[in-house]
Amino acid sequence: MRITELFGIELPIIQAPMAGVQGSALAIAVSQAGGLGSLPCAMLAPEAIRAELLAIRAKTDRPFNINFFCHTSPPADAAREAAWRQALAPYHAEFGIDAASIPAGPGRQPFNSAIADLLQPFAPPVVSFHFGLPEAALLARVKGWGSKVMSTATTVDEARWLQAHGADAIIAQGLEAGGHRGHFLSDDLSLQSGSFALLPQIVAATALPVIAAGGIADAQGVAAALALGAAGVQVGTAYLCCIETGTSALHRAALLSPAAGHTALTNLFTGRPARGIVNRVLRELGPMSTQTPAFPLAGAAMAPLRVRAEAAGSSDFSPLWAGQNTSGCRAVPAATLTRELMPAR
Amino acid sequence: MRITELFGIELPIIQAPMAGVQGSALAIAVSQAGGLGSLPCAMLAPEAIRAELLAIRAKTDRPFNINFFCHTSPPADAAREAAWRQALAPYHAEFGIDAASIPAGPGRQPFNSAIADLLQPFAPPVVSFHFGLPEAALLARVKGWGSKVMSTATTVDEARWLQAHGADAIIAQGLEAGGHRGHFLSDDLSLQSGSFALLPQIVAATALPVIAAGGIADAQGVAAALALGAAGVQVGTAYLCCIETGTSALHRAALLSPAAGHTALTNLFTGRPARGIVNRVLRELGPMSTQTPAFPLAGAAMAPLRVRAEAAGSSDFSPLWAGQNTSGCRAVPAATLTRELMPAR
Repeated sequence: MRITELFGIELPIIQAPMAGVQGSALAIAVSQAGGLGSLPCAMLAPEAIRAELLAIRAKTDRPFNINFFCHTSPPADAAREAAWRQALAPYHAEFGIDAASIPAGPGRQPFNSAIADLLQPFAPPVVSFHFGLPEAALLARVKGWGSKVMSTATTVDEARWLQAHGADAIIAQGLEAGGHRGHFLSDDLSLQSGSFALLPQIVAATALPVIAAGGIADAQGVAAALALGAAGVQVGTAYLCCIETGTSALHRAALLSPAAGHTALTNLFTGRPARGIVNRVLRELGPMSTQTPAFPLAGAAMAPLRVRAEAAGSSDFSPLWAGQNTSGCRAVPAATLTRELMPAR
Repeated sequence: MRITELFGIELPIIQAPMAGVQGSALAIAVSQAGGLGSLPCAMLAPEAIRAELLAIRAKTDRPFNINFFCHTSPPADAAREAAWRQALAPYHAEFGIDAASIPAGPGRQPFNSAIADLLQPFAPPVVSFHFGLPEAALLARVKGWGSKVMSTATTVDEARWLQAHGADAIIAQGLEAGGHRGHFLSDDLSLQSGSFALLPQIVAATALPVIAAGGIADAQGVAAALALGAAGVQVGTAYLCCIETGTSALHRAALLSPAAGHTALTNLFTGRPARGIVNRVLRELGPMSTQTPAFPLAGAAMAPLRVRAEAAGSSDFSPLWAGQNTSGCRAVPAATLTRELMPAR
């Protein structure tokens, strides 16, 4: 089954939820253009989620997707937090930041029953999760009000797990993809594959519609994914410079520069590996550190560095999320990009 | 230009040269079936290369490819060699191997003028190189007798370099690919990408025919590569179990087992990163060691471990080269596989 049937949309194109750089405006534009727009909620407080849902409902009657992380919040670990702050101490000193003043914030909240209460009256047409699925009772509530559910697999084993635990569609996230890796069964990155290898193997191993993600930047990429058996595609990076996003000027500049040719998986910004453009902090600390607190706690001590550096016009400490193919990034309306992603028939 | 025109072949399918597991038999079968068969010469002595060329000429008049490595032979480094043998000492002890008896062999020879002398009377239709290109005068000789030349790019920069230095076609080697990574401008693996990202970016950046390699296992994969702008494909892993190969029974068994789902880039067998199935020695030493001598010198101290382990029926110390998509591995004639790789039109 193509995802056009499953989700009731015109084009088999999902705009990837990208927390921190976009809200309802991008989701609305993509859904209005016939794709599936997505609202990332990983970094939104409940009241913000409600406001964004109201905005979407006010501006489109087309299907849309709302996305949550479903990690387990880690216990505080004072020793790891101290070691991480020690690693960042030279940078805090460079920017005159009093590390003692930085709150050890809880960071991103996973999907929970309070959020389910909030969602229920909206019954969003599609709900997607990253890092697995919520526990069974919570997932049953989401499916009970009629939402279609999708989640990300980075391995064939994860795809089988998602099928067994109630997903309606599987996002096959090739290593090319930008942002956070979606793994949840193992954190061994060597188990993960490029889209050319991952996608057809998940298609062969499961009976659900499989959505290709990672490295797709244009209509040729969409055609290639469909040739490999995808029921649809999820595109993130190519939307990053669309006019409806909140992508910062520094992030846009990096995406459109030669620097975008070198991305890496890094855990420096949150504690979990995510693909972004290599910048100063990745070069100096190495993109994967053994000293970061567990996801999402690494972000607290890094955040003020980003604020100070960005205020000085530098993206040295910014998470410049991007996939390995930034060739689709253009400052165009998302509707234009969405339509142009469709291969000629 | 499709590679069918460039090389004068029927099908845009190149069988990847796979040193150590195949010789002329596989190349002949693929060329006779309409693809481009390849003879890997990286591990062959000059007299063996000549014998294989005579065998090919005797059995087919179709175009074929002959492949060489063109690394720079490293100087001997007694300290690194000693450190590497120290790292392997527990294994040498386990198998009762007297490490002092292991010669520090030169390993693989790069392409050189003596080999060019040998090749000249054969004027092979296609010559491919891994790790860049030979120096200009040597390359000019090869092109002078009419061979078409191709080499591997793992980044857009390498593709541009190959175009500027005389290649007739570029193999875009996505990270999914099995065997040795072909990089030659930088050994920073984080610069390298999956096929979905690498292939279209090389197509856009160069004017030469681009051959997709990495993760292609069936006709759907070929169709996807063509959709992304490839002028042809190079397929290795799927040929590994064909009846014309010399792939060992242990290697075949691994390829057809669930173990094939977990590959890694490892430098343990030669000193350069190559993708193979994770086995005991990769697990225990870690796939990428900082202690290996430079390519290809790491192989000497590892070789007797492989011999002893394989004699005991174990692939714990064997290089089980494989890409990230082994779903195409079947014990069929190579002609069958070659024809089945072609997408329906």
